[in-house]
Amino acid sequence: MHQLSKSTIDAWDARYRGNFINSLSGYKSVSLIGTVNASGQPNVAVFSNIVHIGANPALIGFINRPLAAAPHTIANIQATGCYTINHITPSMVVQAHQTSAKYDDGVSEFAQTGLSELYRDGCPAPFVAQSAVQYSMKLVEVVPITHNNTFFVIGAVQDVYLSSLDCVGEDGFIELPQLDTVTSLGMDGYYVTSRLGRYAYAKPGSIAQPI
Amino acid sequence: MHQLSKSTIDAWDARYRGNFINSLSGYKSVSLIGTVNASGQPNVAVFSNIVHIGANPALIGFINRPLAAAPHTIANIQATGCYTINHITPSMVVQAHQTSAKYDDGVSEFAQTGLSELYRDGCPAPFVAQSAVQYSMKLVEVVPITHNNTFFVIGAVQDVYLSSLDCVGEDGFIELPQLDTVTSLGMDGYYVTSRLGRYAYAKPGSIAQPI
Repeated sequence: MHQLSKSTIDAWDARYRGNFINSLSGYKSVSLIGTVNASGQPNVAVFSNIVHIGANPALIGFINRPLAAAPHTIANIQATGCYTINHITPSMVVQAHQTSAKYDDGVSEFAQTGLSELYRDGCPAPFVAQSAVQYSMKLVEVVPITHNNTFFVIGAVQDVYLSSLDCVGEDGFIELPQLDTVTSLGMDGYYVTSRLGRYAYAKPGSIAQPI
Repeated sequence: MHQLSKSTIDAWDARYRGNFINSLSGYKSVSLIGTVNASGQPNVAVFSNIVHIGANPALIGFINRPLAAAPHTIANIQATGCYTINHITPSMVVQAHQTSAKYDDGVSEFAQTGLSELYRDGCPAPFVAQSAVQYSMKLVEVVPITHNNTFFVIGAVQDVYLSSLDCVGEDGFIELPQLDTVTSLGMDGYYVTSRLGRYAYAKPGSIAQPI
């Protein structure tokens, strides 16, 4: 094995270390987060640090970068209490990545990228019409992470929209490759997936069985 | 689009909702976390809610389930202040999944699954020898998530071990498919990935360019 010590990593320039540490943590559940400010101005931005917290209640979190780098999404969520999360398919990757550009206040990433906003009753925030998996979220808590000025934004899952129900198994599992959902790596890498297998609930004295 | 409303989701049985919500949030950076208690008893367990927090300082977090469901890893981390995170390759998936079984106190998942523990200077917690990507972590903070009794465990990246440096690009990006790192979906699904592309830093007035 090749060792890269903490002192080596600390000495790297910020961009090299950023790429390395961002990929070290592994594949990520990249999605587009749609929001609206109090005046109705829509915003959509790509986020790749989305994390399952629990299913009962159904809670999902994401990391919002420091306010100086990424002010709009978190401000809109705090102003309105709601947002949407939308999966990305291969044909949307270029547009999704382009939403990470620092557009001026008042500029809609929808208009700039060609992603289509979609509004539904009960949720002021826009969904992304091209997404095969869309869901609305209600803000539960913003946890400041003081060590690097980021925020862990926790929300409750509201309504879910799927382009097909064929991908939902008898036990509720969503076979995301059937919906062409991509995963990301680092700050700018996008990947499709292939199924290795699912395994039954593991018990002592046995070995995990494929299901 | 097919709508699944919040009231529909709330009415599902816990297992169906668990599978659904766990897959809804997308692909996850599944890894094995190695720890040791104050008496030197090793533990290794699969965790799939690992999240990049920031690169400067290099911080990575993970969600630990409620103490009643997953007591050992978090207790060991709080006792010793350190732990290891180890990527999973396809040939390790069955063993990795088997570590999720509820073994009695004092039983080592290493002995039960055939994963090999590896100790290195400066880190009392065991690495998983079969992993192509291994790194040690130092505890920074445990953030209780009061809404569902889980914990967001934040740590600082220490030393990193890679089976090959050929996968590290000139800009620090780690091309994880070259190291056979798998991703997970839901509670029990494992996937390999194929590269779609990387895109340059996005700027307004342009369109994301492949790199």
